[in-house]
Amino acid sequence: MDRFSANPAMVMDLYELTMANGYFLDEESRDTRVAFDVFFRRNPDEGGFSVFAGLEQIVDYLDTLHFSAEDIAYLRSLNQFDERFLRWLEDFRFHGDVYAFPEGSVIYPGEPVVTVIADVVEAQLVETEILAQFNHQSLIATKARRIVQAAAGRAVSDFGARRAHGNDAAVYGARACYIGGVAGTATVLAGQRFRIPVSGTMAHSWVMLYEDELLAFRRFAERYPHNCILLVDTYDVLNSGVPNAIRVFREMRERGVQSRSYGIRIDSGDLAYLTKRARAMLDEAGFSDAKIIISNSLDEYTITSILDQGGQVDAFGVGERMITSRSEPVFGGVYKLCAVNRDGKWEPRIKVSDTVEKTTNPGLKDVYRIYDEKGTAVADLICLRGEEPDLSRPYRFVDPLRPWKVLYLENCTARKMQVQVLKDGRRCFDPEPLGEIAARLRRQLSDEIWKEEQRFSNPHRHYLDMSPAYYEMKMDLLAKSH
Amino acid sequence: MDRFSANPAMVMDLYELTMANGYFLDEESRDTRVAFDVFFRRNPDEGGFSVFAGLEQIVDYLDTLHFSAEDIAYLRSLNQFDERFLRWLEDFRFHGDVYAFPEGSVIYPGEPVVTVIADVVEAQLVETEILAQFNHQSLIATKARRIVQAAAGRAVSDFGARRAHGNDAAVYGARACYIGGVAGTATVLAGQRFRIPVSGTMAHSWVMLYEDELLAFRRFAERYPHNCILLVDTYDVLNSGVPNAIRVFREMRERGVQSRSYGIRIDSGDLAYLTKRARAMLDEAGFSDAKIIISNSLDEYTITSILDQGGQVDAFGVGERMITSRSEPVFGGVYKLCAVNRDGKWEPRIKVSDTVEKTTNPGLKDVYRIYDEKGTAVADLICLRGEEPDLSRPYRFVDPLRPWKVLYLENCTARKMQVQVLKDGRRCFDPEPLGEIAARLRRQLSDEIWKEEQRFSNPHRHYLDMSPAYYEMKMDLLAKSH
Repeated sequence: MDRFSANPAMVMDLYELTMANGYFLDEESRDTRVAFDVFFRRNPDEGGFSVFAGLEQIVDYLDTLHFSAEDIAYLRSLNQFDERFLRWLEDFRFHGDVYAFPEGSVIYPGEPVVTVIADVVEAQLVETEILAQFNHQSLIATKARRIVQAAAGRAVSDFGARRAHGNDAAVYGARACYIGGVAGTATVLAGQRFRIPVSGTMAHSWVMLYEDELLAFRRFAERYPHNCILLVDTYDVLNSGVPNAIRVFREMRERGVQSRSYGIRIDSGDLAYLTKRARAMLDEAGFSDAKIIISNSLDEYTITSILDQGGQVDAFGVGERMITSRSEPVFGGVYKLCAVNRDGKWEPRIKVSDTVEKTTNPGLKDVYRIYDEKGTAVADLICLRGEEPDLSRPYRFVDPLRPWKVLYLENCTARKMQVQVLKDGRRCFDPEPLGEIAARLRRQLSDEIWKEEQRFSNPHRHYLDMSPAYYEMKMDLLAKSH
Repeated sequence: MDRFSANPAMVMDLYELTMANGYFLDEESRDTRVAFDVFFRRNPDEGGFSVFAGLEQIVDYLDTLHFSAEDIAYLRSLNQFDERFLRWLEDFRFHGDVYAFPEGSVIYPGEPVVTVIADVVEAQLVETEILAQFNHQSLIATKARRIVQAAAGRAVSDFGARRAHGNDAAVYGARACYIGGVAGTATVLAGQRFRIPVSGTMAHSWVMLYEDELLAFRRFAERYPHNCILLVDTYDVLNSGVPNAIRVFREMRERGVQSRSYGIRIDSGDLAYLTKRARAMLDEAGFSDAKIIISNSLDEYTITSILDQGGQVDAFGVGERMITSRSEPVFGGVYKLCAVNRDGKWEPRIKVSDTVEKTTNPGLKDVYRIYDEKGTAVADLICLRGEEPDLSRPYRFVDPLRPWKVLYLENCTARKMQVQVLKDGRRCFDPEPLGEIAARLRRQLSDEIWKEEQRFSNPHRHYLDMSPAYYEMKMDLLAKSH
């Protein structure tokens, strides 16, 4: 582990330790094997789907989890835990089996994205950190994907570190942005750790250090002729910044510099208006290949609006609204007990709520994504674990929100979504390069997921269906619980 | 440094390195001493003030900042930096002087909360990490303060780790919540690192593991008779949860257990209605000292509304809406060049904007908080550095938003707000215990800050005034820049 991967063993809620200590001391419970599902209930920003990110950090955490002597000493100082439990924690390692969707997958509310099967004492202890990684990175990847979509093929860069919720939020947030489709980041540590392309040129301070803007631009162009993006809004974009930039570009051309990458960045003002005017000025001066980059509180809505109004933009620098997912900064993933093994038999467990959507999906289960003949994902299907849907003939499925309808799938294929990622607590798949994770999402969005689900406004609801056997089991359990 | 305090040297935006490399190679700029101010422009949630948090982490970062061999190797691999600059980074340490408001202070938009004075190469490199700490912790402390105020004397605990934006956000977020006034946290690592009181009892999984709710409650009461908060909403709060809890409390009483802390937690449903009904049931059963704790998407607005409706609540567990500051997850702190030392003389620098509020305050300056005879803070005052306001006679000040008004302060005292925290790059004050930082805020809010500024709705705007000399300097500079 490098110096930034601190052992997050103690990132947990105290009640996990209180419960684990209780289970540990209870002969009946101690070795009880249980299953927890990680799922979420609602797509952020009323979107049609979400993006799964954070799996690599979850697997790394579980694979290396341990408590140090200082950790144990601190817990002992709380005077709440039995000494036998504390000694057991000294040698703790995680022995569970974990199944998960591949990272970078499109995910939908209600389906188990990660499933943890372990002795209850172990399974309980890992709740918070699994959720924290799942929630944070899936949130940011989902938001980044929306912003990248709004940019309609133009590059988006993450500029968010200074407004992130601390260092992890900056670095793992940049990782999640990359999964969501951004071209690069300004955050150096994210580049170093994850090989994300990094970019950056100048801030207002560069311009303000020098006696005047023209001198500041000249100095920069001398130093960085091939990465010469001049920030033109320190004083006055159209009357000072752009004219001075053009003057410097001319001087470069006169010196025979063939810049590979040059242009301007605008960080304030009416970006639609200013980019159109700046584009015209640059073109007229013969710099039609000069790039225009904009930044300043951008998100999918402002980007859409600027482009709708004919804004002339080559790339976007997106900061606070992506790195915090400002419009919806909470991804409500939960970790819910779904089954308990008693005497070798798995008993489903359910958490009841007033609404169908909020009642948990009990029991061990398999999730399939169902594809039509063209390869489009028409539904996800929850089955009893081990129940393989026979799609060679018309297959009856149940939409739990409309269980009275008789529905059939025909000529479809199914793909099981979860794969095993830990076996007896040890990683059983190779870490995936971040580029492959990002490519998985790109491929799913272009080839598999309905465009109707990718709209920002009132998107199509993806069907999360159930096999008749699974639905019956759930209804039986609900009836019993009343 | 403990294992969780990773060296955040590389948490920076690439442009800081691009600019630093440029300054380094420019004979004229390299040793130029400059001043940067950290300030913010708007209180979150349209509040009347904000809370400064994160100073300890800023000081610790600057005091220990260095680059490792791997860091330098990575930067070299980008092929953007001069070898002399990279070698200089190998031995880099920060040599600047830093001045700041004490942590836990009430702060207002526009005033320099932190000022960094250093050679431009050094000052530029530390921008992102200073802002990240300032923005994150001030955001969460400000939000926590609002939530604690809404709780009107009842305890608030931080339950947010699982929805925080990664581990740092959970741990430093808990720290900021404590500064903002919460009584404790559920996040174990925050308790371990910062000695914040930790609390936690059970989740739904405890209840669901057992065959029925009553058995689950009994097991917990046997194990934790003196910290017996039973979660009553797994199946049905009023028909199952509360009756089962009462049964278990009776059994405890029959066994002669005098519990120091017992009661129920409700985590779903209509919390005003349910707590009133539960309170009546507990009282009727003779358990009037049983506590009622509630959680589930609480913030200052829901808490106010629940209490307004007569909700019977002893304590609040607050998660996602505090740890992410959900309603306003961005604290817009910026780091702006305000002065450049040329030939031993400080020249002010200004960043112009269309509005008075967004134009930066140039130059080296001192900020005073002005108190009336009763000790109430009536205004903050920006002066030229070293200009001491003579308050022994009526003092004329300028409100920059109403400069035409002739205003005087009489019978007031002034306190200089910034104190030096680093000298030549080394910490020059002792780390403050977190409890003292939290106490500072509590004292300021009870003794100094107008209640009218503490309202949630349309609070009084605190005056950030200028001395006549400072205002004149700023206006001159603005005139020159046009």
